[in-house]
Amino acid sequence: MKWLEMDTENCPVRRALDLVGEKWSLLILRDAFNGVRRYDEFRRHLGLSEAVLADRLRKLVAAGVLRVEPYREPGARTRSEYRLTAKGRDLWPVLLALKQWGDTHAADPDGTALDVSHSDCGAPVRVEVVCSGEDRLTLTPHDVTVRPGPAARPLHP
Amino acid sequence: MKWLEMDTENCPVRRALDLVGEKWSLLILRDAFNGVRRYDEFRRHLGLSEAVLADRLRKLVAAGVLRVEPYREPGARTRSEYRLTAKGRDLWPVLLALKQWGDTHAADPDGTALDVSHSDCGAPVRVEVVCSGEDRLTLTPHDVTVRPGPAARPLHP
Repeated sequence: MKWLEMDTENCPVRRALDLVGEKWSLLILRDAFNGVRRYDEFRRHLGLSEAVLADRLRKLVAAGVLRVEPYREPGARTRSEYRLTAKGRDLWPVLLALKQWGDTHAADPDGTALDVSHSDCGAPVRVEVVCSGEDRLTLTPHDVTVRPGPAARPLHP
Repeated sequence: MKWLEMDTENCPVRRALDLVGEKWSLLILRDAFNGVRRYDEFRRHLGLSEAVLADRLRKLVAAGVLRVEPYREPGARTRSEYRLTAKGRDLWPVLLALKQWGDTHAADPDGTALDVSHSDCGAPVRVEVVCSGEDRLTLTPHDVTVRPGPAARPLHP
């Protein structure tokens, strides 16, 4: 089956984008990775409307990438915090890959707005595509073969 | 400067999403990585409207990730092919990171619809966050330090 004959409804890229592939959803997740948990903080920091924020938080919780945790400050009513789940934390390489591309191709003349470095040695982090074999070779698009997987289906059966 | 006090207009993740962070844009790029170049092929394969496809192709060309190349089949008028630029090819880790997450968290019971493996040895590819130091250690969110970079600006100066 060739790529153009493949139904991509169950393509993993498509499936991922259906769940988290919206700009504000990804920016909420970026904030969550940077420690933001509270509705008002997301809203102020991202500068988006209540309606959009509430909708995206609801979808991210429904998708299982954020979970709701109640908290209560003295004298106030109980509110909700939004925390990354393990499924949400697995999106880290997606966000860092976007950061890497933005730093390379859309940065300010001053450089990056956001440094992410290895705490132990201070070296910057990189997102790489590697072979899962022992040598962990770094790969480029020329080094790989793309084939329909076991779940591949024809586009117009 | 703390994260919540940072203006994220020039955050590299935000900048990347402003240019290519839309579901159909990313699916067009996925198709382009799989060799699709022609308008009619994108439209048939992605199943999206002419208006949306034309808009997204225009934006991707304006963003410099696709370029237009004329082609002509015998007896037909000249048409346009859309090809990845170097800037576009640099989005490969973004797409593979999305694929990896989709395979892990949103796959069919049968497995993946799309196998990407190292041509030389057949092992699956992986997207990893690594230290850019010599040892190329694989990193998790716990291993890194996030700091405002040189272009960081306060949210409300």
